[in-house]
Amino acid sequence: MTTDEQLALETADSGQFNPDEWVIDNNGKTALSIRIKGECLFKEVSPYQTVEVFDTHDRGKMLTIDRMVMCTETDEFSYHEMIVHVPMLTNPSIKNVLVIGAGDGGTIRELVRHPGIESITMVEIDEVVVRASKQFLPTISSALENPKLNLLIDDGIKFVKDAADAAYDLVIIDSSDPVGPSEGLFTKSFYQDVHRCLRPDGVVSIQSESPNFHPKAFVELNQCLKQVFGVEQVHPYLVFIPMYPSGLWSLTYCSKNAAHPINNLDYDKSAKFASLHNLRYYNADVHQAAFALPNYISSMINNS
Amino acid sequence: MTTDEQLALETADSGQFNPDEWVIDNNGKTALSIRIKGECLFKEVSPYQTVEVFDTHDRGKMLTIDRMVMCTETDEFSYHEMIVHVPMLTNPSIKNVLVIGAGDGGTIRELVRHPGIESITMVEIDEVVVRASKQFLPTISSALENPKLNLLIDDGIKFVKDAADAAYDLVIIDSSDPVGPSEGLFTKSFYQDVHRCLRPDGVVSIQSESPNFHPKAFVELNQCLKQVFGVEQVHPYLVFIPMYPSGLWSLTYCSKNAAHPINNLDYDKSAKFASLHNLRYYNADVHQAAFALPNYISSMINNS
Repeated sequence: MTTDEQLALETADSGQFNPDEWVIDNNGKTALSIRIKGECLFKEVSPYQTVEVFDTHDRGKMLTIDRMVMCTETDEFSYHEMIVHVPMLTNPSIKNVLVIGAGDGGTIRELVRHPGIESITMVEIDEVVVRASKQFLPTISSALENPKLNLLIDDGIKFVKDAADAAYDLVIIDSSDPVGPSEGLFTKSFYQDVHRCLRPDGVVSIQSESPNFHPKAFVELNQCLKQVFGVEQVHPYLVFIPMYPSGLWSLTYCSKNAAHPINNLDYDKSAKFASLHNLRYYNADVHQAAFALPNYISSMINNS
Repeated sequence: MTTDEQLALETADSGQFNPDEWVIDNNGKTALSIRIKGECLFKEVSPYQTVEVFDTHDRGKMLTIDRMVMCTETDEFSYHEMIVHVPMLTNPSIKNVLVIGAGDGGTIRELVRHPGIESITMVEIDEVVVRASKQFLPTISSALENPKLNLLIDDGIKFVKDAADAAYDLVIIDSSDPVGPSEGLFTKSFYQDVHRCLRPDGVVSIQSESPNFHPKAFVELNQCLKQVFGVEQVHPYLVFIPMYPSGLWSLTYCSKNAAHPINNLDYDKSAKFASLHNLRYYNADVHQAAFALPNYISSMINNS
């Protein structure tokens, strides 16, 4: 029996995870625990939340906010590739992008692969997340100094309220869960502002929670988006994210009279892009497949 | 703050899961913990393994073997529908089916939806699993008395060794992880026997582990299947299973000169079947989508 197997058995019997060795993401009914190595590498309590970085046993370095896993070095690409390349490859003429949240920088790293983008405005409320990521997660935060990026430390809700009409081709809402500072990113008034500051053929992609681990947030956000964008313009899609509880996560593509995320996909171009950039999760088949929802997930949002 | 949220915080701080309240599935690096209610409903140590049934807080009743989650009432349909309907709806002329494992009965419940099936032989090594499921998981084990079913308590490895050539149209390997009695179900000699007892246009569907949580088992089984069936005849597909660690699970469809699982799918017939039976996970889009593998998973098996 290996040391890991021995440890696993002891934990199962005693229920005791050494809190110096495990980070636990728990909703009171199910919990995902990730084993860490050595000391916490970074801990700072910002005005908004507790930001920490750990080294894990088999997931590389890991960023947590209030002990919820934001990303791990070995798994982050699934989320970041899917939140960016699905809207970008469906709408290749996108030039001006607004990103809310995204402090770790992974979304920016994927955006700058698209040469057609002229400017990216990123509004992250918590400079501590940006600082921690720049220092400890260089493979994720690598594009945070890109000249096309205008990084503002500011309140995203206030920012879109004050933003000019029709200013952006794409808005990405790359937020944490709807507790703490991200709570206001799950409201109708916020999405009405987002809708207003989109160009007439603009699109949005959104971190829309787990249908399994956060079913209420997933359903309510879907209802809200349908009210703002129209029922036919809201397209949830799924991504496997093993380091988020349940592993089953949703993103949502909403369009303001822009391209349909499957019908308007240029398959060959998309496949070529994935290959050129050695993407690790996204490919043209996965792009299309992600929109196929199991029946129980469709029912959650179609009967509501 | 709700009681659940309070409990979640306490657990995160102390690392202490009360072992009477949580079942923990742990590989030493990541762990999935599921909260249970009340006493263990069933516990028996068979000659092969420890079989237990628990009531959970939000997943219904749960069957575990050696404390690894086998199924929960609220989530089992994803696995059972996908391991059965993908091969069945691709090959509607299937008449004789052999099932190895499947003691909880969920696979049989899905098989008997197909009126073309004439006989099902199920070989489960551990009668304790069958007994526990019949008593505590009636919605899963509901077809274990079906007249088309011949249920044998026997060693599946020995059974296929002794089976007649070309006896079955479909073989389903519905096993637990490759430790304990299931270990021999992950070997080349076992699959050579399976291949031999398939009709010339027979197919197999297999529980092929998590590319994320059990990468070694996933890769080695894929290599083994390619050696036995041929590289072009082995098609892994993915299912979201939130109650298995990482949530990312694979099944594998192998064909012996039978239909291709996507190219030969009758989409309309498949959609009608899903609708008629009110399936909860499977639909024709999900059938096709499941075969779209993220690049990092393709690389695991194509470079090996």
